Amino acid sequence: MEATAADEFMQEAIEEARTGLAEGGIPIGAVLVIDGKIVGRGHNRRVQKGSAVLHAEMDCLENAGRLKPADYRRAVLYSTLSPCDMCSGAVLLYKIPKVVIGEHRTFQGAEEYLRSRGVDLVILDDPECLRLMQEFIAANPALWYEDIGEE
Amino acid sequence: MEATAADEFMQEAIEEARTGLAEGGIPIGAVLVIDGKIVGRGHNRRVQKGSAVLHAEMDCLENAGRLKPADYRRAVLYSTLSPCDMCSGAVLLYKIPKVVIGEHRTFQGAEEYLRSRGVDLVILDDPECLRLMQEFIAANPALWYEDIGEE
Repeated sequence: MEATAADEFMQEAIEEARTGLAEGGIPIGAVLVIDGKIVGRGHNRRVQKGSAVLHAEMDCLENAGRLKPADYRRAVLYSTLSPCDMCSGAVLLYKIPKVVIGEHRTFQGAEEYLRSRGVDLVILDDPECLRLMQEFIAANPALWYEDIGEE
Repeated sequence: MEATAADEFMQEAIEEARTGLAEGGIPIGAVLVIDGKIVGRGHNRRVQKGSAVLHAEMDCLENAGRLKPADYRRAVLYSTLSPCDMCSGAVLLYKIPKVVIGEHRTFQGAEEYLRSRGVDLVILDDPECLRLMQEFIAANPALWYEDIGEE
């Protein structure tokens, strides 16, 4: 049952990634789930908003709005890609206990550190998440490296 | 000379904090400095924008816009308060090598972790930064705890 729920919410994160791609952006999406319901969704907005901070996970948290500290503590964050240092830091700030990751072959963020701080990580190794990123990076390497602060 | 420059830029961060306070927000400010010039400035926007992600440092990075990876690597981030896990993560994402912190008595973020990742931290222990936060928290404890994800 849990695998089915993870798949369902990851599909919503993938929809966000596709929306971002259709807007000319980087195809990474995220949803925040509390008590089995999506309370926020978002996608990377670097291109669309000229944003340096709105990675998919951050956009999702922003769109979820101001939640109570207790709400985050029973939330699950779904992201199509392994969260970077910034997005991992947001998970830690709000004490989100679980992150479901679409894939971490393209990029692996602060997974070890998240685990060391008690966050439960589930890696789905989803082929669609991987395909979206690999096609995008092949076509837009500079944009991708800008997004992860690499030269 | 360095202390003087740090003071000058911290004064600008304090100005941002005061602007936030005047707007009814949480009085934390930040500026990003590259090659001795301020390239971005910001303040906490939780109240003003209903934002869960625009801590002062994030607002500052957002307002600085899309910079090149190489630009961040010679930047200094000034913040009136010790950066939380999220803002520390943003520093790590962009490989900002130095953070100047107004005070860390009110709240101490991921300082040890930042140092372990090679970031140079300077703590000014500035009385005005401290006064702004202590007066604010005494008057608005729930808002402050929401901002740091604590119950």
